[in-house]
Amino acid sequence: MNTISLITDFGYKDNFVGVMKAVILKINPKVTIVDLCHEIEPQDVLGASFLLRGSFGYFPLGTVHLVVVDPGVGSKRKRLLVQTKDYFFIGPDNGVFWFALKDETILKIIEITNERYFLKPVSDTFEGRDIFAPVAAYVSKGECVEKFGKITDSLMPLEFPELKKNNRYLIGEIIHIDNFGNLISNIDKNTFDNFTKDRRFKIVIEGVVINKISQGYFEGSSLRPLALFDSFGYLEVAIKNGSAQKLLKVEKGAKLKVIKT
Amino acid sequence: MNTISLITDFGYKDNFVGVMKAVILKINPKVTIVDLCHEIEPQDVLGASFLLRGSFGYFPLGTVHLVVVDPGVGSKRKRLLVQTKDYFFIGPDNGVFWFALKDETILKIIEITNERYFLKPVSDTFEGRDIFAPVAAYVSKGECVEKFGKITDSLMPLEFPELKKNNRYLIGEIIHIDNFGNLISNIDKNTFDNFTKDRRFKIVIEGVVINKISQGYFEGSSLRPLALFDSFGYLEVAIKNGSAQKLLKVEKGAKLKVIKT
Amino acid sequence: MNTISLITDFGYKDNFVGVMKAVILKINPKVTIVDLCHEIEPQDVLGASFLLRGSFGYFPLGTVHLVVVDPGVGSKRKRLLVQTKDYFFIGPDNGVFWFALKDETILKIIEITNERYFLKPVSDTFEGRDIFAPVAAYVSKGECVEKFGKITDSLMPLEFPELKKNNRYLIGEIIHIDNFGNLISNIDKNTFDNFTKDRRFKIVIEGVVINKISQGYFEGSSLRPLALFDSFGYLEVAIKNGSAQKLLKVEKGAKLKVIKT
Repeated sequence: MNTISLITDFGYKDNFVGVMKAVILKINPKVTIVDLCHEIEPQDVLGASFLLRGSFGYFPLGTVHLVVVDPGVGSKRKRLLVQTKDYFFIGPDNGVFWFALKDETILKIIEITNERYFLKPVSDTFEGRDIFAPVAAYVSKGECVEKFGKITDSLMPLEFPELKKNNRYLIGEIIHIDNFGNLISNIDKNTFDNFTKDRRFKIVIEGVVINKISQGYFEGSSLRPLALFDSFGYLEVAIKNGSAQKLLKVEKGAKLKVIKT
Repeated sequence: MNTISLITDFGYKDNFVGVMKAVILKINPKVTIVDLCHEIEPQDVLGASFLLRGSFGYFPLGTVHLVVVDPGVGSKRKRLLVQTKDYFFIGPDNGVFWFALKDETILKIIEITNERYFLKPVSDTFEGRDIFAPVAAYVSKGECVEKFGKITDSLMPLEFPELKKNNRYLIGEIIHIDNFGNLISNIDKNTFDNFTKDRRFKIVIEGVVINKISQGYFEGSSLRPLALFDSFGYLEVAIKNGSAQKLLKVEKGAKLKVIKT
Repeated sequence: MNTISLITDFGYKDNFVGVMKAVILKINPKVTIVDLCHEIEPQDVLGASFLLRGSFGYFPLGTVHLVVVDPGVGSKRKRLLVQTKDYFFIGPDNGVFWFALKDETILKIIEITNERYFLKPVSDTFEGRDIFAPVAAYVSKGECVEKFGKITDSLMPLEFPELKKNNRYLIGEIIHIDNFGNLISNIDKNTFDNFTKDRRFKIVIEGVVINKISQGYFEGSSLRPLALFDSFGYLEVAIKNGSAQKLLKVEKGAKLKVIKT
């Protein structure tokens, strides 16, 4: 009885996700598979990494987190199996784990090379099915991580949009827009609190000014955006019962400024 | 071995649903989770209620039905655990259960207040993860419903589009348009039969007139709409191998009239 | 412990898929259900058949593959239960199994007629719920296939786009466009290899000429399409980190020509 979570950019119109699950169940019929997200934008490694970071800790101990967002499929990039104190992570070495795990205690990083665990022949374009899925299934059955390849010591870093900061300004950007049209930034609560301390502030996005942090969507109106920390700890701009994306006409990458007043 | 069903307006591009499943599985690793629908339109309590009403009875006895369509998240609206003869229902007290359960025998209504069962800290914006999911998991493990809070006796009512009726007319409206473009009304078969009895009738929508009830889509043509009762007992207008929504250019809320002739 | 796979054109906005799963779990609570695809285009029997063909062999032996893409629902078309050496297949007799199974050893074809296994009353429009789901559940529990009806010996054939071929030309067409915008043709690797042998060739689609088969997306650039065999063995045209569909403005049905040079 173990769990595998899946993050991919495969969407729902093909058989890609279902076939990966088939491969997993053929090896470990007792595993529980949870879809974390299959609508990562194609090749959006940063989006996958951000989503993984906010999700993995909610799962049962020992869960195998499988991430197949893989612009370099078939090329020489490494395939990794990472063991932390509580979980396993499997996927291509393209930065997706670097950001997601940067506050975690990593016990071992294995470069997956043991073809004994692969589906053969390995295709040029679908290592999710032929390599990552079967490896995840064997790990979920308790196979020792060293069996899959040799220990390595590095994760490829990921270029992550940095916050800009001086005494008066803290500038982040919108890195995700959720299903409700809420605009989620890369400014986390700790950074925000350390910056504003007891000072008054305003939050500016696309010319709209917000003067306080709300405690819930219910505080707003359907016309005035509000700012609050989302359930994963990031500053977001939202509209009560509406879409901030539509009202403000904002895209990913838009700047969000916090200014001391 | 128990089942939890999920209805939300979370869609598929975020990690919301997957994280709720993670929380559930951490508490009850043996539960089976079934996605009933995650594409309820944002904040559409009526749509969720209608979908729940047509679905819950197909599940195994003892299933826990979890509904998180929650425009009032973080506000003072109650959180409910409802026990009927055959099932459990968990979600916000915003009317979603009032319509869905109005023909059911309700045994107990509990206002969920016991923080012992919550994930901490409880966020302002995601009670689905922090309150409803863990409570559903514990209920699915057999925890006694009284443990989650105090007994209450009311469900918030839901404003539901009423049928209008006189001797000659029965007027309903389109309340759902399905994946095939079929137009589903709020006129159920009993009401229709009681109204028309042995009399002849015509069904009118957007100027189009239909003179009979068909026994299946195969009776129609690709140009002429037909009327029939859908598999949940509601009057619908459809096109054989096509979309009635596209042909008739109809939106939710359009009137559907049954007229005795 | 058995597996049922699902292919439908039901999409995700209704309760159709969830209710079918409920019906299955009520009969066999221990089964594992895998969504292969629910975004088959409405009534696209060919698309479902193609997807099934490329998928079923990855599943554990004994898996029950349930396909509900059923333009003739409620009409006189047969309902089938097909047993091959390794799997079971259940769905309407509309051609979906003819193409998918044409290289398989079929052991038995049963016309499903035994109402004992149906949900009652059987609706006119949702045999997926009332007939196919319960039959799949009982088959997954090990019920003998003869119990569901009488042996029959034919599968309805499916009109499948044929390849055209002479000494110089091999002409196929685009039959699927995947989530990444890759253009997948009906030319399989064997046919291609037999046609080109050691000769040089060019591949032409919408005026664009490609001179070789690549070993992976990484070989391309973001402006020049490449050709390669997809992970299921079919010739596809793709763009590195982009959508060939958008760049070439190609729709399903577009011709793909292989020309000896």
